[in-house]
Amino acid sequence: MTHTASMLRLAPYRPTIDEEALVRCIDACTDCAQTCTACADACLGEASVAHLVTCIRLNLNCADVCVATAAVLSRAGGNATDATTLVEACAAACRACAEECDRHASIHEHCRVCAEACRNCEEACKTLFAMAPTR
Amino acid sequence: MTHTASMLRLAPYRPTIDEEALVRCIDACTDCAQTCTACADACLGEASVAHLVTCIRLNLNCADVCVATAAVLSRAGGNATDATTLVEACAAACRACAEECDRHASIHEHCRVCAEACRNCEEACKTLFAMAPTR
Amino acid sequence: MTHTASMLRLAPYRPTIDEEALVRCIDACTDCAQTCTACADACLGEASVAHLVTCIRLNLNCADVCVATAAVLSRAGGNATDATTLVEACAAACRACAEECDRHASIHEHCRVCAEACRNCEEACKTLFAMAPTR
Amino acid sequence: MTHTASMLRLAPYRPTIDEEALVRCIDACTDCAQTCTACADACLGEASVAHLVTCIRLNLNCADVCVATAAVLSRAGGNATDATTLVEACAAACRACAEECDRHASIHEHCRVCAEACRNCEEACKTLFAMAPTR
Repeated sequence: MTHTASMLRLAPYRPTIDEEALVRCIDACTDCAQTCTACADACLGEASVAHLVTCIRLNLNCADVCVATAAVLSRAGGNATDATTLVEACAAACRACAEECDRHASIHEHCRVCAEACRNCEEACKTLFAMAPTR
Repeated sequence: MTHTASMLRLAPYRPTIDEEALVRCIDACTDCAQTCTACADACLGEASVAHLVTCIRLNLNCADVCVATAAVLSRAGGNATDATTLVEACAAACRACAEECDRHASIHEHCRVCAEACRNCEEACKTLFAMAPTR
Repeated sequence: MTHTASMLRLAPYRPTIDEEALVRCIDACTDCAQTCTACADACLGEASVAHLVTCIRLNLNCADVCVATAAVLSRAGGNATDATTLVEACAAACRACAEECDRHASIHEHCRVCAEACRNCEEACKTLFAMAPTR
Repeated sequence: MTHTASMLRLAPYRPTIDEEALVRCIDACTDCAQTCTACADACLGEASVAHLVTCIRLNLNCADVCVATAAVLSRAGGNATDATTLVEACAAACRACAEECDRHASIHEHCRVCAEACRNCEEACKTLFAMAPTR
């Protein structure tokens, strides 16, 4: 259990966006960042690392974008719409990583779990994005 | 529920350190990073922001160190001892932030929750640190 | 002098995008991240911190996005087009921060310098973005 | 040319630590983070990636710690001593990465340049650390 929901509830402002979707997206981003970092490291430990190079790169990209998105959304109090393009970039990084992880999912179970975390985050980003008022 | 424990279990190596303590520390770091980022933003939203400047700075420092520590520990497969000094730095950042948040905890409930997340992370870092084989 | 250009030249691949624009964008992102982090801290040190709350938030957002963009572009070897939306999000964060910093530039010289670093980074992102092949 | 020195000069406080050493350390950290990220990616592009797995991991660790250290030092206005353990952790990450990169320096020139950036950053951290008042 994270503190995301209580911290948002205790902030001295209300976000202009659905709070539940915001909390879900922040938590999905931090979970996805950790999962992708761990998947890259697991891939580096495989005998078949040469076949996993694209996967590792997409893992690392996805982790970087998820960390930034979680942080920006954690201060999205007044202004969640400013984050629209970043949330879109995050969904794109998650999708790219999930697609590549899927290719190795039958052989490497860490890739299967990582694809799951990425799809969960992509979905949470898209839900938040769909709710954001037009810029 | 994060994917930290399953990802570690599915990695093609076993860490040289207690897995449960490692998972707990990673999850405490990512939660603390988010909580501190949110606390800084909540502080920025308070009418009394001028009194919260030190709190905001320590929040931001703690978030930065927690993000790095979570990432390094997420690839701590073979080599968790390499992270010893970083985990120590993380515990120090958490303690400094918790102490400052405590000063505002009776007025700002987000500071009370943040101090809690920081103490939880400091404790998890110290537990992991105590288990690490001497360098 | 950074090592960005030599590292790119020594990589075992050629990027699909103009190398000079890529190096310029990476360096602009890392410089902008540092400048924004420093501007947020300088703002926190001002007696008028209550008037600088929006500036601090946009500084922190911009720093987070710039750090992620610099990292993703630093591994943009084969696949710079994947980063298109992120680079666009980075330009947006830089523009938002520059506009807010401009409002305080006549009073706080650190805001004037920060607006300059943000505009430089926005420009470098747009140049890179304009060169990226259509997805 | 980065904006680090001018931003520090324009801050509404003077650091308790030598400003030149602080600027040098911040710039060395941001440069080292970029170089390590690029070295990890170059290693991933090599035919001999299986021999470079430890190098990639240490590159990624070093980049993460350098990013955090640069950020914390960029807000080190009043309180650089708080960062002492982190700066020590950064020096350790840089040394570990430089030592591993050295092993591949005769074959992969990107590892030679990366070892150089790491040693430069380790040195800058140690210089800053040596100047810090005792905690």
